[in-house]
Amino acid sequence: MRTVISEIGGLDASASEAAQQRQQNLTKPLGALGRLEELSIQLAGITGVLRPPLRPCRVIVCAGDHGVTEEGVSAYPADVTAQMVLNFLAGGAAINVLARTFGAEVTVVDVGVKGELPDHPRLVKAKIRPGTANFLHEPAMTRAEAVAAIEVGVRVAQAAIADGVRVLVTGDMGIGNTTASAAIAAALTGQPAVEVTGLGTGIGRAGWRHKVEVVARAIETHLPDEQDPLDVLSKVGGLEIGAIAGVVLAAAAAHIPVIIDGVIATAGAAIATRLAPAVRAFMIAGHQSLEPGHRVLLDYLDLRPLMSLDLRLGEGTGAMLALPLLDAAVALLNEMATFSDAGVSGPVE
Amino acid sequence: MRTVISEIGGLDASASEAAQQRQQNLTKPLGALGRLEELSIQLAGITGVLRPPLRPCRVIVCAGDHGVTEEGVSAYPADVTAQMVLNFLAGGAAINVLARTFGAEVTVVDVGVKGELPDHPRLVKAKIRPGTANFLHEPAMTRAEAVAAIEVGVRVAQAAIADGVRVLVTGDMGIGNTTASAAIAAALTGQPAVEVTGLGTGIGRAGWRHKVEVVARAIETHLPDEQDPLDVLSKVGGLEIGAIAGVVLAAAAAHIPVIIDGVIATAGAAIATRLAPAVRAFMIAGHQSLEPGHRVLLDYLDLRPLMSLDLRLGEGTGAMLALPLLDAAVALLNEMATFSDAGVSGPVE
Repeated sequence: MRTVISEIGGLDASASEAAQQRQQNLTKPLGALGRLEELSIQLAGITGVLRPPLRPCRVIVCAGDHGVTEEGVSAYPADVTAQMVLNFLAGGAAINVLARTFGAEVTVVDVGVKGELPDHPRLVKAKIRPGTANFLHEPAMTRAEAVAAIEVGVRVAQAAIADGVRVLVTGDMGIGNTTASAAIAAALTGQPAVEVTGLGTGIGRAGWRHKVEVVARAIETHLPDEQDPLDVLSKVGGLEIGAIAGVVLAAAAAHIPVIIDGVIATAGAAIATRLAPAVRAFMIAGHQSLEPGHRVLLDYLDLRPLMSLDLRLGEGTGAMLALPLLDAAVALLNEMATFSDAGVSGPVE
Repeated sequence: MRTVISEIGGLDASASEAAQQRQQNLTKPLGALGRLEELSIQLAGITGVLRPPLRPCRVIVCAGDHGVTEEGVSAYPADVTAQMVLNFLAGGAAINVLARTFGAEVTVVDVGVKGELPDHPRLVKAKIRPGTANFLHEPAMTRAEAVAAIEVGVRVAQAAIADGVRVLVTGDMGIGNTTASAAIAAALTGQPAVEVTGLGTGIGRAGWRHKVEVVARAIETHLPDEQDPLDVLSKVGGLEIGAIAGVVLAAAAAHIPVIIDGVIATAGAAIATRLAPAVRAFMIAGHQSLEPGHRVLLDYLDLRPLMSLDLRLGEGTGAMLALPLLDAAVALLNEMATFSDAGVSGPVE
């Protein structure tokens, strides 16, 4: 983990500047492409070139179970984590469909699923432990396990990059993980549990009040140190959240853009940012989910999501939906005519 | 125009219902795909099938000039309309790049460009008049010209549909047309000019105050009748705005989804909706632009745009950016596994 963190540098300022210059000469009013202009400039800064290839693109779906599901914080039984991993491997989940639609690949990582999973070419078996402990009563995992989970994410992302992958997308699967993400959001930002806890997959009102109580009591019990991201991750986090942090760190170190999904991925991104603040510049927030903790974490990271389509699914779906906007941003920067090429008049002086 | 209006029916309720049913069995929490679920249900209702083909997709860029540019309401000279048409034909404008990126086609229609344009396979020459009159002093066009402009749009859209096109995208080009769109928004909604007038391609603060004044005086002078959309279009509208209304009417009559762009296209869509209220159900609002009149018109039509990326370019760019979301919505509905297919447990009772 230390090695990858030491490799993270800054953006390529001269590439960003060249992109900004070019935007000013394209046949459109200044700034008229809005966030797609910013995105093209960011992508140039991340990759060092004005026309970075954006394929292969791979979503890394990090999967893990959560002991806190014992407290009845989810609408779904914990078995669904493993069942959905099988669904990912069979190609039937939402993230598979979106990846196929937009020309991306899916890799699943078992960082901590309860139960055995079959061998499969798209599954990386890297279980640290079969689910976290119930963090209402004890720390979710040890500090060593938290580091190991991050290192799994680093390793899987580095393998993807070695395969030639040019864009990474963060995904998650883990029944109970909006509870862990809410706890991370509360621990890092100091916001009360009631402000960061949402309905997850769809618990009712009474279930939500109980979930808020669980998050609040976990924070009171463990007092995670907001200055120490490994303390936060180990006490109230999740194994898949740690792995996502590792994916983000490895992407940044390799100058690969990484698209961040919803509240779980953003919790991972926040842990990564506390470990290495420079990673923030390499992240693109794809989608604003309905989870209240997501807004709090995005504000904390000062990230503005590209879209807001009321999704609350995870898996990387919100992030994957943003991939065509990256395609658009790069194509516009590179393929539009300039005013002089096209013989179009500029603004009246 | 009367014929196409008489052909506009409702959505296919049984297809919408079948889509809604299927959404409930897919491997995701109920409603977790948010607006993509609504979109898949709307597309089924429009087309009558759960898996409508979404290509060929064609953007129809309606171009016309505006006499009101004499009042200095735009940052760009009026010549830019014709110059940009040439840029569209050469493939160098933003809309060309986006259409190529997402597998769509571009057709340009000269409904009222000042000056002669060359013959080109992608240009439909259907000039009603070489630009509108300056509506600060006289009506922009006659009522007969307004009807003729709408009929150009109908004809071009019907030709596209005859070519096999399955999705239409509305686009516009016309220096001065945010002024006409603001006037239409004021006339239809009763909002004051100051609430609906924006910076367009980027006039300064003083230019904006003058533009507000021009819009307000045009409304006071002509008193367009909000009950009579042809009165509004002819007095303070634009030829390309009329043509866009025609495209929308023809799409709805043929059960073809039509993606609406920014403030100019939405002004055309509002005219179409006043002529035939049933068209609204066939529209998909692609993008919320920065023009304040756009928000006012979307609210008036009770349309919620899919994205908000701070674009203010027109040409159909905001609408075209939404095409991948239609692809995603249809693919998800049709390709995701159901709970029973995938052996995934449903919610805990």
